[in-house]
Amino acid sequence: MFDNDSIMRLACSIAFERMGKTSPNPAVGAVITKNGRIIGNGGTQNYGGNHAEVMAIKDALSRGEDLHGAEIFVSLEPCSHYGKTPPCTEAIIQSGIKKVYIPLLDPNPLVSGRGVQRLLDCGVNVEIMHKFFPMAADLLRGFKKYILRGKPFIINKCAMTLDGKIAANSGDSRWISSDSSRLLVHKLRSKVDAVIVGKNTFLNDNPSLNVRPGDFSEEAFFPFDMGINLTGRYNFFLEELFKAKPDPDIEPLRVLIGMPDYIPEGSNFFRDDNYVVITSKKSYNEKIAKNSNLKNFDFRQRLVVGEYDDPSKEVDFILEVLKAHGVMHAMLEGGSGINGTFFNAGAIDMFMYIIAPKVAGNGIPPISGAPVEKISDSLLLYDVTTASIGRDILICGYKEQYNFEMM
Amino acid sequence: MFDNDSIMRLACSIAFERMGKTSPNPAVGAVITKNGRIIGNGGTQNYGGNHAEVMAIKDALSRGEDLHGAEIFVSLEPCSHYGKTPPCTEAIIQSGIKKVYIPLLDPNPLVSGRGVQRLLDCGVNVEIMHKFFPMAADLLRGFKKYILRGKPFIINKCAMTLDGKIAANSGDSRWISSDSSRLLVHKLRSKVDAVIVGKNTFLNDNPSLNVRPGDFSEEAFFPFDMGINLTGRYNFFLEELFKAKPDPDIEPLRVLIGMPDYIPEGSNFFRDDNYVVITSKKSYNEKIAKNSNLKNFDFRQRLVVGEYDDPSKEVDFILEVLKAHGVMHAMLEGGSGINGTFFNAGAIDMFMYIIAPKVAGNGIPPISGAPVEKISDSLLLYDVTTASIGRDILICGYKEQYNFEMM
Repeated sequence: MFDNDSIMRLACSIAFERMGKTSPNPAVGAVITKNGRIIGNGGTQNYGGNHAEVMAIKDALSRGEDLHGAEIFVSLEPCSHYGKTPPCTEAIIQSGIKKVYIPLLDPNPLVSGRGVQRLLDCGVNVEIMHKFFPMAADLLRGFKKYILRGKPFIINKCAMTLDGKIAANSGDSRWISSDSSRLLVHKLRSKVDAVIVGKNTFLNDNPSLNVRPGDFSEEAFFPFDMGINLTGRYNFFLEELFKAKPDPDIEPLRVLIGMPDYIPEGSNFFRDDNYVVITSKKSYNEKIAKNSNLKNFDFRQRLVVGEYDDPSKEVDFILEVLKAHGVMHAMLEGGSGINGTFFNAGAIDMFMYIIAPKVAGNGIPPISGAPVEKISDSLLLYDVTTASIGRDILICGYKEQYNFEMM
Repeated sequence: MFDNDSIMRLACSIAFERMGKTSPNPAVGAVITKNGRIIGNGGTQNYGGNHAEVMAIKDALSRGEDLHGAEIFVSLEPCSHYGKTPPCTEAIIQSGIKKVYIPLLDPNPLVSGRGVQRLLDCGVNVEIMHKFFPMAADLLRGFKKYILRGKPFIINKCAMTLDGKIAANSGDSRWISSDSSRLLVHKLRSKVDAVIVGKNTFLNDNPSLNVRPGDFSEEAFFPFDMGINLTGRYNFFLEELFKAKPDPDIEPLRVLIGMPDYIPEGSNFFRDDNYVVITSKKSYNEKIAKNSNLKNFDFRQRLVVGEYDDPSKEVDFILEVLKAHGVMHAMLEGGSGINGTFFNAGAIDMFMYIIAPKVAGNGIPPISGAPVEKISDSLLLYDVTTASIGRDILICGYKEQYNFEMM
C-alpha cells in the first residue's frame, strides 16, 4: 500500500515527464488510487488534447476499474472552464471519484479556486497537500508567467570558466564544460519549446540546437545514473531533469535573434522549417544593404522583421513572436550579446550556469549588458540550488519566487 | 581510549592552528600518547622557535610524564638536519619515545626520508599513515612550493557575481558577497603571511587588509558554527578554515603592487610599517613625474623599485621580494589587473572564488589577463572543492596537485 505522499510525488513526476509537450498548457500529472492500489494514471496531452485527469480516468476505465469511491492525485488544481477541452472538474464529478488531492491552486485567474469550489459543491472532497507546493510550483513557473504576464519563461543557460568566461576572445568555446554538463543541456532542450541564439553564436558555432543523446558516450550519463545531490534549495525540476532521458524526437523551435552578416553554406540552423529569425527592420536593412545574398536567401516565411524603432522594445517584440509560436518555455543559449539584451530587459527568469573548474584569464563574459554603476544594483536570485555535474558545478536560481509580485 | 586515526587528525588540526605563525617553517602539530592517554601536544613555534615534536615532548615532561615507551603522532616527518634548531629526530630518540606516526615524508630534500631513516637506525619504530596523506598535504602545499621552487604560494581570492564580475564598471564592489563570505576572508587572512592588492584596489577600496572579526555580527558566524559541508574533493585546509576563529592579533604583511597615482589622506594601507610597496622603475618614474607629492611621500624604506625592463619579469621580482620578507603564503585580493598579471605568469597556486547568487550584467571580471585564442588553453584546476557559505558558493581549486611535476 502506498502513502499519499508517494502518490502525489508520482503525479508530479508524470507532470515533469510531460513538460515540453503541452505548451502553452501546463504539464500536469494525475494518478488514481482505490483501496491502496493505483488503478490509473495519465499526463496532459499535446496542446488541444486531453488533460491529465481525463487521461487517468480513461486509463482506469480501459483497465475495467470502477471509479466510484476512488481518489485522484493531480499535480495542479483541475480546470473548471471550457477551453480546448471540457472542464476536468466535470469529468471527475461524473466519474464517481470521491476525493481530489492537489498541491496548489491553478495560477490561471479563470480557474484559481473555482475548480476546488466546483468539486466541493458537487460533493467531491478536496485536500490541498501544502507540503508539495514547492515541488509542483517548480514545474509551473513558466505556465504562471505565461498566463499572468502573457510572456514566455526564459531560461538562460551558460557554460563558463571559474573566472566567468563563456568563450575565448576568438569566439572559440569548445568545450568549456564536461560531456555530462553538455548532456544536461540536451536534457533541458527536451523540456523547452524553443532555443534562442544570437547571430554571433549562429556564425561561430553552427549550432544544431536539437537533442542528440547519441553524441554522448556512456561516461557522460554516469553522474546522472549515479544520482546527483542538490545543495541549497531543493528543486524538483532539476532533480527530475537530472534523471530525464534526453528525447531526440523533441525538436524545440530554433530562434535566431538578429540578422547575421551572412548565411553559411550547410548551416544546421536552416536544415528544416522548424525555426524563426527575428530581427529589427533597421538591422535587416543594414545587413541586406551590405550583402545582397542575404536578400535572396529563402527564409521560407520564417523571417520576422520588427517595425519598432526603439531598441528597448526589441525583447518585447521577440517575446510576442515567441508567444505567437506557442512558446511557453525558451532556453537562451547565448552568446554574450543576446544574453545582455535579455538581461537588460529583465526578461531572464531562470539562470542555469555551469561552471567548469578552469581559468581562462580573459575572454567573453556570459552577459554583456549595460554598464553597471553600483554592484548593489545587481539582480539577487531566489531559490538558488547548486549541484556537481561530474567535475563541473551547476548554479541555478530564479529572478523571482514562484509567488512573485505582480507588476 | 583514542584510536590512532583520531590522534593523527588532532595532530593535523594543531598544525592548521599554527599556520600563519611559522613561516617559512612548515606548520606542524604533534601529539604524544601513552597507554591510551594523551600526555603531551604541541605545534611549531614562530620561525626560529621550537618545532612541534620538541614542544610536545616539553609539554609531556612539564606534566611529569615518563616518555619511555610513548608514541608520537606528527603531521610531518620529523626533521633530521640542523637548522635554526637541533633536529627533532634527536629529541625523539633521546626522549625514549618508541614509535613515530607520520602521514607523509618531508618535501624538503634535506630531510625527505632521512628523518625516518635516522629514527629507524636508532631503534624507533615509524609508521606512515598513508590515508592521512591528503589531509596533511593540504597544509603543506605552500611549504612544498617554497622549499622546492623558492617561491611563495599564492592564493587568489575573489568574490564575484554569478556572471563573473568582481565590481561594477565604476569600481564599486561593496558588497558582492555575504557577511559570512567576507568573514571567511578574514579567517584566511589569519593564515597567510601577506595580502597583496593592486593599485586600483588600493585607491578604490582603501583596504585595511587586517583581521577584524569585530566587524561582523553573530549572523555572519552562524553558517560556520552550524558546520559546512564540502562537496567534491575533501579539503582539510578548508574544513579547518571554516572552523577557525579569525585572529585579530595576526597582521599579515600588506603588499601594494604598482605605484598608485596618488596616496590618499588617511590611507589604511600606510597606517603602520607592516607593508611593502613593490613597483617597477618605469612605473615609479612615470608616476612621480606626474605627481611630485608621490616623490615626497615617506615610504619609510618600504618602497622596493624593481630595475627590470621586461614586464614579464615583474611577478618573479615580486615573488623574490615577498620571499625576502619571509612570506610563504600570500593572498592575492585583486583587483582584476594584478590578478591578470599573476595569472599570466602562472603564479596563482590556489583559487578561492566566492560566487554570490546575483547577476550584474556587466562590470569588471576577476582576471584581466592576456587575450585567449582557444578555450582549451585554459588552466584546468585540480582537487576542486565546493561549499555553500550561507547564500554564497565557494569554489576552490589548485593549479597543481600536491605531487606536482617539478619544472
